[in-house]
Amino acid sequence: MVLGKSLRSHNTAKKLVALIGPQVSGPCKDVLQKIFDEVRVVDVLDSGDTAHLAMMKRPDLGVTFTKLHCWTLTHYSKCVFMDADTLVLSNIDELFDRQELSAAPDPGWPDCFNSGVFVFCPSMETYGKLLQYCTEHGSFDGGDQGVLNAFFGDWATADISKHLPFIYNLSSIAIYTYLPAFKQYGDKAKVVHFLGKTKPWSYSFDPKAKRISGSVDEATSHPTFLMDWWMLYSSAVVPLLYEQYGDQPFHSG
Amino acid sequence: MVLGKSLRSHNTAKKLVALIGPQVSGPCKDVLQKIFDEVRVVDVLDSGDTAHLAMMKRPDLGVTFTKLHCWTLTHYSKCVFMDADTLVLSNIDELFDRQELSAAPDPGWPDCFNSGVFVFCPSMETYGKLLQYCTEHGSFDGGDQGVLNAFFGDWATADISKHLPFIYNLSSIAIYTYLPAFKQYGDKAKVVHFLGKTKPWSYSFDPKAKRISGSVDEATSHPTFLMDWWMLYSSAVVPLLYEQYGDQPFHSG
Ligand SMILES: O=c1ccn([C@@H]2O[C@H](COP(=O)(O)OP(=O)(O)O)[C@@H](O)[C@H]2O)c(=O)[nH]1
Ligand SMILES: O=c1ccn([C@@H]2O[C@H](COP(=O)(O)OP(=O)(O)O)[C@@H](O)[C@H]2O)c(=O)[nH]1
Ligand SMILES: [Mn+2]
Ligand SMILES: [Mn+2]
Repeated sequence: MVLGKSLRSHNTAKKLVALIGPQVSGPCKDVLQKIFDEVRVVDVLDSGDTAHLAMMKRPDLGVTFTKLHCWTLTHYSKCVFMDADTLVLSNIDELFDRQELSAAPDPGWPDCFNSGVFVFCPSMETYGKLLQYCTEHGSFDGGDQGVLNAFFGDWATADISKHLPFIYNLSSIAIYTYLPAFKQYGDKAKVVHFLGKTKPWSYSFDPKAKRISGSVDEATSHPTFLMDWWMLYSSAVVPLLYEQYGDQPFHSG
Repeated sequence: MVLGKSLRSHNTAKKLVALIGPQVSGPCKDVLQKIFDEVRVVDVLDSGDTAHLAMMKRPDLGVTFTKLHCWTLTHYSKCVFMDADTLVLSNIDELFDRQELSAAPDPGWPDCFNSGVFVFCPSMETYGKLLQYCTEHGSFDGGDQGVLNAFFGDWATADISKHLPFIYNLSSIAIYTYLPAFKQYGDKAKVVHFLGKTKPWSYSFDPKAKRISGSVDEATSHPTFLMDWWMLYSSAVVPLLYEQYGDQPFHSG
């Protein structure tokens, strides 16, 4: 929801699609429908297509599979996938000038791209091949990033234009590992990615004092970006949640 | 010394040059001369050229400057610079097919290259421009990596062939940060870079038991690579040191 609102607040001219699991609650879905142009429920286990069959052999790749589902959005010719734990800091519509598969390097193993932000072209053919790849080879990291890097295996060496600048997928890990570079280039950040176990929603926020409660793990969440996330959540998302839930506690499903 | 021996043991056909400071002891220099084709003493503060003048204004950039000195090796048309804390695991002469400035991405901020391994073309003109850049802009990280990344500022976006595969400058940080990728690609490693404060020579080694004493910080030094380093040091470098120092304790200067 915060991601969607951040895209809207930077005036994206593109259609926004949210892929959600079947467990997401009705009111939550209603809120998502107010923010996104399309909310598509992706039901991994009950799908009756080839996907289902492929997955039967590898139940461990469930979450991976969910992300791959974005290739089925064939009513669009080109899309940008964004993890739910990303936050947009400026208009990034120019990403649609890039080709499949464009992505930013992963800090850590920089010849891999990070699969939190990538440009792709929906296609049932590619989707089928990706599923087949999953079934035959699995994922070297147990997640979608391993599959996608193996499948789009020439990313590191083939075409510099498919290397998105790191500021389109800036993860807090990088801030921590090479602080001088962040100080040099960080003010140009366009997308922040809160990767790792601790997500912005793992913290609590006091909206009156505008303060995040508890200690912030600076290795995974830069305090300023975390504050940006919570400010947008409080100002733009909470009112929508109130409309749906009234005085009842929110539950996402 | 270990780096030089590792290049020799993988049969490099290239000339080896060591750049050393004036503090390096005589016997140590003799050993270096047995391993390298050329040992050049780089005297930062006493040099009478433009370098000296430029540095007067920025004494903090001393070490940076030392590395930049490699551009003065103009009796070669192309070179590969390698940090003293790197170790070669296979022949890498093919790096000479690359152009200036080719380098591998830095894990941490992957739109910067790591300056531990890079291909360059010696040139007094480039050298002068680099020094001028240092004087005018300094280094965003206080070291050579900041200067070189700012000077060769289009590395991230201009030419994929100038992106050396990460296996030519594999740092232990990456192993720790994204272990599955290391398991997938690590066996292809060609150059290991022991970057960070703890260097292989910070540990002690028991050559009889073939064991590293004390606890190894796996975040900075992969145990296998560390062992490779020490095995080569004991077998190929220690005998040369004995020849020079006899029974006296080694001291590098
Ligand atoms: O139960 C889940 C887990 C993950 N995801 C999606 O998969 C992405 C990748 O997971 P995560 O961001 O936790 O991985 P990280 O970026 O920390 O490696 C998320 O951002 C979500 O978009 C999802 O839809 N449902
Ligand atoms: O007193 C010094 C410090 C550094 N160096 C050279 O500069 C390189 C970079 O330093 P270091 O490897 O410690 O930096 P790191 O790779 O850990 O960032 C070393 O490998 C050496 O080649 C040197 O010659 N003398
Ligand atoms: Mn994520
Ligand atoms: Mn080094």
